[in-house]
Amino acid sequence: MSCASIPAISAASPSKSLVSAASHSASKSRFARCACESCGLWLCLFRIGGFQLVVTTICNAGTVAEPKTVSVAEPLLLKAVRGEDVERPPVWLMRQAGRYMKAGLCIHGYCVHSYQAICEKHPSFRERSENVDLVVEISLQPWNVFKPDGVILFSDILTPLSGMNIPFDIVKGKGPVIFNPLRTNADVDQVRQFDPMESVPYVGEALTILRKEVNNEAAVLGFVGAPFTLASYVVEGGSSKHFSKIKRLAFSQPNVLHALLQKFTTSMAKYIQYQADNGAQAVQIFDSWATELSPVDFEEFSLPYLKQIVDTVKQTHPDLPLILYASGSGGLLERLALTGVDVVSLDWTVDMAEGRRRLGPDVAVQGNVDPGVLFGSKEFITNRINDTVRKAGRGKHILNLGHGIVVGTPEENVAHFFEVAKGIQY
Amino acid sequence: MSCASIPAISAASPSKSLVSAASHSASKSRFARCACESCGLWLCLFRIGGFQLVVTTICNAGTVAEPKTVSVAEPLLLKAVRGEDVERPPVWLMRQAGRYMKAGLCIHGYCVHSYQAICEKHPSFRERSENVDLVVEISLQPWNVFKPDGVILFSDILTPLSGMNIPFDIVKGKGPVIFNPLRTNADVDQVRQFDPMESVPYVGEALTILRKEVNNEAAVLGFVGAPFTLASYVVEGGSSKHFSKIKRLAFSQPNVLHALLQKFTTSMAKYIQYQADNGAQAVQIFDSWATELSPVDFEEFSLPYLKQIVDTVKQTHPDLPLILYASGSGGLLERLALTGVDVVSLDWTVDMAEGRRRLGPDVAVQGNVDPGVLFGSKEFITNRINDTVRKAGRGKHILNLGHGIVVGTPEENVAHFFEVAKGIQY
Repeated sequence: MSCASIPAISAASPSKSLVSAASHSASKSRFARCACESCGLWLCLFRIGGFQLVVTTICNAGTVAEPKTVSVAEPLLLKAVRGEDVERPPVWLMRQAGRYMKAGLCIHGYCVHSYQAICEKHPSFRERSENVDLVVEISLQPWNVFKPDGVILFSDILTPLSGMNIPFDIVKGKGPVIFNPLRTNADVDQVRQFDPMESVPYVGEALTILRKEVNNEAAVLGFVGAPFTLASYVVEGGSSKHFSKIKRLAFSQPNVLHALLQKFTTSMAKYIQYQADNGAQAVQIFDSWATELSPVDFEEFSLPYLKQIVDTVKQTHPDLPLILYASGSGGLLERLALTGVDVVSLDWTVDMAEGRRRLGPDVAVQGNVDPGVLFGSKEFITNRINDTVRKAGRGKHILNLGHGIVVGTPEENVAHFFEVAKGIQY
Repeated sequence: MSCASIPAISAASPSKSLVSAASHSASKSRFARCACESCGLWLCLFRIGGFQLVVTTICNAGTVAEPKTVSVAEPLLLKAVRGEDVERPPVWLMRQAGRYMKAGLCIHGYCVHSYQAICEKHPSFRERSENVDLVVEISLQPWNVFKPDGVILFSDILTPLSGMNIPFDIVKGKGPVIFNPLRTNADVDQVRQFDPMESVPYVGEALTILRKEVNNEAAVLGFVGAPFTLASYVVEGGSSKHFSKIKRLAFSQPNVLHALLQKFTTSMAKYIQYQADNGAQAVQIFDSWATELSPVDFEEFSLPYLKQIVDTVKQTHPDLPLILYASGSGGLLERLALTGVDVVSLDWTVDMAEGRRRLGPDVAVQGNVDPGVLFGSKEFITNRINDTVRKAGRGKHILNLGHGIVVGTPEENVAHFFEVAKGIQY
């Protein structure tokens, strides 16, 4: 089959003719291929979630991709976390799926199913993150384009809230909105324990599909929000600049906050177990706002709950790597290691060599290239990657950014990042 | 003179009758007093800037405040910085003058000249910060109410920009706006070196008045923005979330940024000298956004310029204490000390004891109570102050917040903070 008949199509309106051109071969398997007449390269067509067709990768040497069985090989990321001898650090990028991907899958001028196009058709973030087909499609976009060593579920740390009787939405241009912020004992009493199978079955289904699609060529990653970070949203009523409402609560009625944190702790431990049972091969805990706390307050309002989550999960899933991320953690590093997680994800405000030294040899590190580096020249990006990898030392390092990719990041620089990263040899 | 005739007046409309009631004694000196009939306490009336009258402090034991001559006593803050034996740490609060002061000077129900009232009459931030009378009045508001050990000039780090041929404004609800952001060599060529005496004479005049009014009962503090932080505003065009424009410049055309940083460096060194020559007894350098840089980038784009400023100022003003503040500096602490400043101002994300240890004994520390603590209970505030002072150890410590006071902070808690702080005995 040739692609000659495929017209140039925009990201916003996937062309019917592309679908028909490929459908004869795609209808029987999940894959098809066609040749680009302008350069002769083969493009793969990949069916996912019902009848959607997505142009994915340039097929090597024109090989037809065939339906997969789960590979027995173990993902590089898992080996690296365990400290096994690996040839290079695995690499993925926080927020690799989603907003920054302007063009989505554009190969040789053909763009289909960009994240932006999906947003136009499904403007509700909650729909995009709670519909199995969409979750899978969006999670796989960076996988199809960049082949990272980790494929993280497209979701949000707030996704469990509805199932805990905390109604919320994520509003474009505004961010999370908690309809009835929680600030009293009575409010906290209304919070239900989370039953993932009942409340978010689409997460389990999506992880199961992702696991099959990614086929152990990369690790499928789940994630949850940490108790303090979740509490900050539900007490503040959404995003916050100064966190004065949760601090008012913490510093005047700590028992109310502790009751809320305990509910999130029990629920998130269960959620991690559920994600692992359904395909997640590692789970990252985002305590994004932990560093709004003084170290002494972190020791009261975050650390014990993180530790409780790790202890609970390790009882049932002793081999599941847990990764902890907190931005701005230069004053907290040693305390992050006390949680018992396997990997501490460093933000870019800490020098990798110093972070490694402060964390000690037992903990693996993730990070920590400044997302702003991706706005620099390709030469600069290359040098910074090499510098980071050198400072992290051989093994027990997952190369990543120190924070999520920023909207507006040039995608060619993201491609360059992965190209350099995957070309590293220790 | 009695205050019996003074009606209850709102902050927004200072009453004429208050002015007349006091004017007969105020007309000949800068001070007058009147007794509050409801409680018998004496209130001071203080004339400043032409014919404005401000109710200031409750006079101790009814003593009439008289026009001052500069006291020979040295402010506690200066002694503490030098490591002299002091009985307690000096205390002031970042952003103590300005927005958070809702009620301004309200004593026994009489409120006049609150910051909000001043904003209503003078809605332009630039006017408020570039008019000698207003600068003095606003700078003295916290002094009159809380008697801190440091009285910082009401100004903005961007104030010098106009004099450097960088037009800007500070817009309510939006923040700083740079009308023509600088991003090229040609843009940087247009930047003029700063001549403070020519461009901001009101700063010198205000400092001179403040010095006289504060009368060595507290240290008068000047401040400037650090080169990288100033550059971030003028390259981004204002405030920024991700600093992607200045990072694009730094990481692809570093020479353009270095040229801009050098201009700010020369200008800010001169500005510090000017402030000191006109009355500032210590100067704080705000490198608020330095910690957006990775440590390795801080070493290129901030540290050498800070060091150059310190070296230049020390040549002419070897005894002028220089304080350096950078928020989120947990990954940078050791490097901040390398600038040669006398005091490092710690934010609250670093434990005071650990910060002290990492900085070493030669550097004084400032900070570092979480501004969110001021939303807590009075008992919590007391405990946190004591904990911070204990961790800082005796001497070489200026008690302060780890960041500016947050708008919305209960003023009674600010009063409590000062009361507890000033009651400390090492």
